[in-house]
Amino acid sequence: MFGKILVLHGANLNRLGKREPEVYGTQTLADIEQNIDLFVKEKGYTMEAYQSNHEGALIDQIHNAEGKYDGIVMNPGAFTHYSIAIRDAISSVKVPVIEVHLSNIYSREEFRHHSVLSPVCVGQITGFGAYSYILGCQALIQHLQKTKG
Amino acid sequence: MFGKILVLHGANLNRLGKREPEVYGTQTLADIEQNIDLFVKEKGYTMEAYQSNHEGALIDQIHNAEGKYDGIVMNPGAFTHYSIAIRDAISSVKVPVIEVHLSNIYSREEFRHHSVLSPVCVGQITGFGAYSYILGCQALIQHLQKTKG
Amino acid sequence: MFGKILVLHGANLNRLGKREPEVYGTQTLADIEQNIDLFVKEKGYTMEAYQSNHEGALIDQIHNAEGKYDGIVMNPGAFTHYSIAIRDAISSVKVPVIEVHLSNIYSREEFRHHSVLSPVCVGQITGFGAYSYILGCQALIQHLQKTKG
Amino acid sequence: MFGKILVLHGANLNRLGKREPEVYGTQTLADIEQNIDLFVKEKGYTMEAYQSNHEGALIDQIHNAEGKYDGIVMNPGAFTHYSIAIRDAISSVKVPVIEVHLSNIYSREEFRHHSVLSPVCVGQITGFGAYSYILGCQALIQHLQKTKG
Amino acid sequence: MFGKILVLHGANLNRLGKREPEVYGTQTLADIEQNIDLFVKEKGYTMEAYQSNHEGALIDQIHNAEGKYDGIVMNPGAFTHYSIAIRDAISSVKVPVIEVHLSNIYSREEFRHHSVLSPVCVGQITGFGAYSYILGCQALIQHLQKTKG
Amino acid sequence: MFGKILVLHGANLNRLGKREPEVYGTQTLADIEQNIDLFVKEKGYTMEAYQSNHEGALIDQIHNAEGKYDGIVMNPGAFTHYSIAIRDAISSVKVPVIEVHLSNIYSREEFRHHSVLSPVCVGQITGFGAYSYILGCQALIQHLQKTKG
Amino acid sequence: MFGKILVLHGANLNRLGKREPEVYGTQTLADIEQNIDLFVKEKGYTMEAYQSNHEGALIDQIHNAEGKYDGIVMNPGAFTHYSIAIRDAISSVKVPVIEVHLSNIYSREEFRHHSVLSPVCVGQITGFGAYSYILGCQALIQHLQKTKG
Amino acid sequence: MFGKILVLHGANLNRLGKREPEVYGTQTLADIEQNIDLFVKEKGYTMEAYQSNHEGALIDQIHNAEGKYDGIVMNPGAFTHYSIAIRDAISSVKVPVIEVHLSNIYSREEFRHHSVLSPVCVGQITGFGAYSYILGCQALIQHLQKTKG
Amino acid sequence: MFGKILVLHGANLNRLGKREPEVYGTQTLADIEQNIDLFVKEKGYTMEAYQSNHEGALIDQIHNAEGKYDGIVMNPGAFTHYSIAIRDAISSVKVPVIEVHLSNIYSREEFRHHSVLSPVCVGQITGFGAYSYILGCQALIQHLQKTKG
Amino acid sequence: MFGKILVLHGANLNRLGKREPEVYGTQTLADIEQNIDLFVKEKGYTMEAYQSNHEGALIDQIHNAEGKYDGIVMNPGAFTHYSIAIRDAISSVKVPVIEVHLSNIYSREEFRHHSVLSPVCVGQITGFGAYSYILGCQALIQHLQKTKG
Amino acid sequence: MFGKILVLHGANLNRLGKREPEVYGTQTLADIEQNIDLFVKEKGYTMEAYQSNHEGALIDQIHNAEGKYDGIVMNPGAFTHYSIAIRDAISSVKVPVIEVHLSNIYSREEFRHHSVLSPVCVGQITGFGAYSYILGCQALIQHLQKTKG
Amino acid sequence: MFGKILVLHGANLNRLGKREPEVYGTQTLADIEQNIDLFVKEKGYTMEAYQSNHEGALIDQIHNAEGKYDGIVMNPGAFTHYSIAIRDAISSVKVPVIEVHLSNIYSREEFRHHSVLSPVCVGQITGFGAYSYILGCQALIQHLQKTKG
Repeated sequence: MFGKILVLHGANLNRLGKREPEVYGTQTLADIEQNIDLFVKEKGYTMEAYQSNHEGALIDQIHNAEGKYDGIVMNPGAFTHYSIAIRDAISSVKVPVIEVHLSNIYSREEFRHHSVLSPVCVGQITGFGAYSYILGCQALIQHLQKTKG
Repeated sequence: MFGKILVLHGANLNRLGKREPEVYGTQTLADIEQNIDLFVKEKGYTMEAYQSNHEGALIDQIHNAEGKYDGIVMNPGAFTHYSIAIRDAISSVKVPVIEVHLSNIYSREEFRHHSVLSPVCVGQITGFGAYSYILGCQALIQHLQKTKG
Repeated sequence: MFGKILVLHGANLNRLGKREPEVYGTQTLADIEQNIDLFVKEKGYTMEAYQSNHEGALIDQIHNAEGKYDGIVMNPGAFTHYSIAIRDAISSVKVPVIEVHLSNIYSREEFRHHSVLSPVCVGQITGFGAYSYILGCQALIQHLQKTKG
Repeated sequence: MFGKILVLHGANLNRLGKREPEVYGTQTLADIEQNIDLFVKEKGYTMEAYQSNHEGALIDQIHNAEGKYDGIVMNPGAFTHYSIAIRDAISSVKVPVIEVHLSNIYSREEFRHHSVLSPVCVGQITGFGAYSYILGCQALIQHLQKTKG
Repeated sequence: MFGKILVLHGANLNRLGKREPEVYGTQTLADIEQNIDLFVKEKGYTMEAYQSNHEGALIDQIHNAEGKYDGIVMNPGAFTHYSIAIRDAISSVKVPVIEVHLSNIYSREEFRHHSVLSPVCVGQITGFGAYSYILGCQALIQHLQKTKG
Repeated sequence: MFGKILVLHGANLNRLGKREPEVYGTQTLADIEQNIDLFVKEKGYTMEAYQSNHEGALIDQIHNAEGKYDGIVMNPGAFTHYSIAIRDAISSVKVPVIEVHLSNIYSREEFRHHSVLSPVCVGQITGFGAYSYILGCQALIQHLQKTKG
Repeated sequence: MFGKILVLHGANLNRLGKREPEVYGTQTLADIEQNIDLFVKEKGYTMEAYQSNHEGALIDQIHNAEGKYDGIVMNPGAFTHYSIAIRDAISSVKVPVIEVHLSNIYSREEFRHHSVLSPVCVGQITGFGAYSYILGCQALIQHLQKTKG
Repeated sequence: MFGKILVLHGANLNRLGKREPEVYGTQTLADIEQNIDLFVKEKGYTMEAYQSNHEGALIDQIHNAEGKYDGIVMNPGAFTHYSIAIRDAISSVKVPVIEVHLSNIYSREEFRHHSVLSPVCVGQITGFGAYSYILGCQALIQHLQKTKG
Repeated sequence: MFGKILVLHGANLNRLGKREPEVYGTQTLADIEQNIDLFVKEKGYTMEAYQSNHEGALIDQIHNAEGKYDGIVMNPGAFTHYSIAIRDAISSVKVPVIEVHLSNIYSREEFRHHSVLSPVCVGQITGFGAYSYILGCQALIQHLQKTKG
Repeated sequence: MFGKILVLHGANLNRLGKREPEVYGTQTLADIEQNIDLFVKEKGYTMEAYQSNHEGALIDQIHNAEGKYDGIVMNPGAFTHYSIAIRDAISSVKVPVIEVHLSNIYSREEFRHHSVLSPVCVGQITGFGAYSYILGCQALIQHLQKTKG
Repeated sequence: MFGKILVLHGANLNRLGKREPEVYGTQTLADIEQNIDLFVKEKGYTMEAYQSNHEGALIDQIHNAEGKYDGIVMNPGAFTHYSIAIRDAISSVKVPVIEVHLSNIYSREEFRHHSVLSPVCVGQITGFGAYSYILGCQALIQHLQKTKG
Repeated sequence: MFGKILVLHGANLNRLGKREPEVYGTQTLADIEQNIDLFVKEKGYTMEAYQSNHEGALIDQIHNAEGKYDGIVMNPGAFTHYSIAIRDAISSVKVPVIEVHLSNIYSREEFRHHSVLSPVCVGQITGFGAYSYILGCQALIQHLQKTKG
């Protein structure tokens, strides 16, 4: 009866709170996941989260999500910019994926302006810090209600 | 006591509901604005909306927003891709701006993949249809609370 | 019973006859419009013409053409090369648009070789001086007869 | 007393009516040439037509046109995009050439957006199906009257 | 007997003194215009100034300058980088135009390094703050004396 | 009852065995054709082969293949890299075409890495010397059985 | 006495039969491997197959192939387009590698047209569905006989 | 005992003397060939000349030159800029080829600055009008003496 | 008590008056220096001038200016477009540098549109003939008064 | 009291001594590590080494280095050219990283000339074979003494 | 009565005979100059030669040639590819310049394919070893006779 | 018996200690040379140093090094990025050259990321301040022992 959301974190996001706090803020991944959990529960959803620095492990997770989760909210980290394999993984499943970023990738280095994943995601949310995840979950829930309802 | 939000719509958005419904949906601009109004009221905010096909008119609105509105949620339409003048207008005021798009601009024509405005906005939300505006308002309100609180 | 054609002239075309006559000829816009009027009348059509140096005003005209005109013959002037907003305006209406140019844009400066509008127009006529408008009207009339007849 | 027009068709145009009818229509080259013939006769001109899949044969025809024809209406087919040799052939004769295309080459594949021939032609007409040839002949006749009269 | 100079300010220059003072200084447009007025009066010239955020309005001003002003000193703001329409407006009149910029556009973002207007102006002065206008007027006056005298 | 295959060889392939043997091997075209003949006969097919250094002659052959051959195995030689005319010829017939190359074009000069023909062929086989033709015939036969059976 | 072939499948190929069947067909990886097994057995070879979504795991396999397998037939999936590490792995062993693709990568998105692996493989076979593997094995066997015989 | 030189002229060179005399001079091809003939006779060589507008015919000539001529002096005309097929023809024979051009191709249009043939020729002479052929023959003779002597 | 200005002229400026007078005017360098001398004297400054065709000599001059001159007005000539060494020399001293050009470099050949020096100069003045030097001195003096005063 | 250095080897470096000895030399990784060990011991440091073909495993190592090692000397192998994820890993820790390469990457293939890691490393040493590691350790030790001392 | 030719050699040509003999041959500069001297004397000319590794020194020589020499034959060495200052020096004198190169610059590294000097020279001769100088002198003499005679 | 090393410093390095100390440190060139001297003496080598802002002077030094020095350690300064003449000078001698840089050129402006010299040097060391010279000498000595021993 309750919908299920998978939250995926890509490379280096396990360093959150320790890594360049002036860019990424001081919250740790655990803090963020707790907030997401509270938020989606209120909406009648449950969530599970997974972080990896291994591209292949993220691909495995996306494959396994089919039939197990209603949707994915993903912050791909640096894989955003070159992992065509993750792009193909998203295309290979029917589960909808929302792409989120903590920082505004368009006001950083040139090579961070391009995402190879965006064209196969439902939409993208970027620049609102940890709150990007909350907005991503809300967008996913609204998307699920519109396409399933 | 109530915060005020300005919603700006750029070129051709007055055609919503009539223009290419397979890309942009069947809701009119009036429908969307009504939904935004309901949403922000609940959060204790009021909103006003303005649409123009004239780049200069949008720039005038951004200038006038200073001191009158707490933030702007803007769907710049085609101006997204070339109006450096709107970019400079955003830089020239202290009011925070959130950029939103109805369609996923990254899965459309090549020339729509690049935004000259993103680097000077707080963040960007793209691909969730009319709901992108709602997410944009929510992101703005959260941003205002974080930076003012 | 009579079909109606809208002739649109973009930026700087009000200067025709005065501006660089070695490139654009000595006829004024009024002269050209009189010739177009005579030509389309003979074919059983009426025409109205509008010139503006304001991108937004041309977009407004294109929007308003829906339901009022059977087709548009447009010389976009310099907007040809960068106005994605006019491109979207053309896409947002069902009225067919024919793009015309006085000079051969392909034998001028590099930046004039590219039109952002051509992909959404029925066709393009370039290089025949004021006579490009006449050919454009004739092409439009033939197009209307083929698609409506 | 009667002027003479040469109509040249480049590579693969002998396949018209058989090749991709959704792009190029169902008329054969013979049908089109008959229509051109009727059209130019009414204006007091005669025409001859020639098709070849051989770049060199088209160059020979252009050379031989000097002194024999008043002008050329040419649909170069795929040679449009790379034959600098045909470009030089056009430059090497005084006979004016009008470039025509059946389909709107600017709304097709990227590599069809560029013509190496346009800069040395009087003008270009693209996107009106077989009617592009008729418009081309009319533009040529008007050009001949203006430059000779 | 007295020559007349038109000073044109493009998009966002009405924000001067309020907008990013670390880049553009603290003087307002009114302050600057007063200084220009004093400077040209001493040289026996009068001036009038006009600011707009509307590309079309600036084009109208350039057209109307013909026969009314001896020259134009223009700070096009962001239009510098993409307005081919303003470029064509400058080409379409005989009035000489001097391009000025407050900041050194060559030490800012990459997209500000290129001006589409420079090739059709007499010359360009960039990087001296409000004093760029004074130098622009002086250059214009010298240019008028050299070409008229 | 027996299917028929057309083997086409483009520019300079008549030089095989004489030309740069370290790149292309020492077999002549006659040797290769004999091997192909043996191979396809065993599979119940007949073949005919044609070589030309003339782009137009190859286009004529492709046109004439329709209704006469079941498929084409083609080594276009240097035309691979620029002949949009041959590309259009392939598109203009229903006969399936397999593209083959003797050498691995991707480990040679930069300009040989791009084929303008690949997008309109069924598939491409490259780098196996004269054996590429045998693999091409086998791929064609399998393709014919799959699409006809 | 029997030669041994290693068949490697890259990222997302475990999804075959489930993923975008209109692009990749309905056969599963198990089906394909069974066909390959039958085919190579007839030629006197044995084969083993390995799939991974992990770039590093594929590199390990390539290293370990030295001295254990006579050749590799590899469908690298998305790694084709960016894994210079797999390229270096291929260069670092003496085992010959044949690159195969199910779909015609040259008629898909621009970024799939380029393979960083091709220059260090013996050859490439693309576009024949699951049959590309069969052709790849045949090419490999022929290559082994030629270079060892 | 006498060496033999083949002089090849590419597309449009049969128009010499008639075509754009301000670029190419007023001498005809016959005039030029007579001068070449006189020049090489004095040096103890004979020459034969051949012109064609057909790329394939020139390739045939280059192939046939092997064993019949000691060297080739070639003005490829427009084929210079795109005919990889002629490039491969030159590579496929042992006869040395000298590339000559009448005009300075580097001071003309951008697309004439690049030669796909130069890398496989002995050398290039450009910009001396008809005298480029004479210098080419002299360079060839010197080259033959150096490499054969 | 009097400020001191160094005027530097780069490569080929010793040819002024003799070189391409239609581009650079008929004044010699001596004429120009005399005018500059008169102009700055009136403002209470002295000046010294130096010309060299040697990049290294200009770098030496810039280094030596530190502590000896209050500012530099420099016309770098062709070094403008490639001398990163002069750029570094300017960065390595505290003396402010104003870049001036006789002709409007933006209406000349493409390669003259880019200056590697502008980003490290105070500002740039281009297109006013010899008068560019006078404007440059005036700009420098105003800059010195503003930053020192 | 003794400092600790982590030596990281990226993809394919386990093949050293076996892989392309003409490029990479005949020493194995074990040989190299022994030399490094001797070298750093003499300077009062200890070292540990780790090699992986898995991008994610290297990222994990970099994260874990924080607080455990004083610095990293890393030869990223092929990851040098595309792993933005490793770049972000380096940015996410405070441990200084020195980038080393065995071969001179600037005299090899074009795609090896660019490192995405260099901008976030202290410095780069390239081209001295196995000795690059020794120089890297020496540079690291000097860096540690300078920044800590 | 005797014409005078200046032969200029650019950077590193003093190393001829010692530097990379497989590319540049074994003759020294003295050998070459002796041959040139003999050749031009026979034609009734005298010559002087000058070599420098200093860009500025070559510019000085070009300036001084005016009125002293009838023409220049120049091998600019590496300055060919970037010295806009030498280009301007050539433009600034009336003395005609012939550009020569020992090796075929078009079959070497990419960056040697482009000459910034060619557009302002009479013509270019490349690829004939030391004999390129002889051909250059002959071309110059012929040019002088044609333009002076 | 003692080896000899030439240390070369390019443009602006005489400004060290005075120029942008936040980028280049506070040591002067004399300080650095003293340290190098001490370092190489201990290894049984002597050194001489030379600085110039003149490209030609550095080329002369490189030429003269042959037979006089065993190797060169060079910091080319800004010449790194465009001096093909210095590149050719390095190629023209047998003396090995090590390229060193004070700052990490890969974390500075885009145009400093490319070295035209690296492909012809033994190796490159960048980013360790004055210590880069010491590492460069050590690398050179090791290189000399390996290649001579």
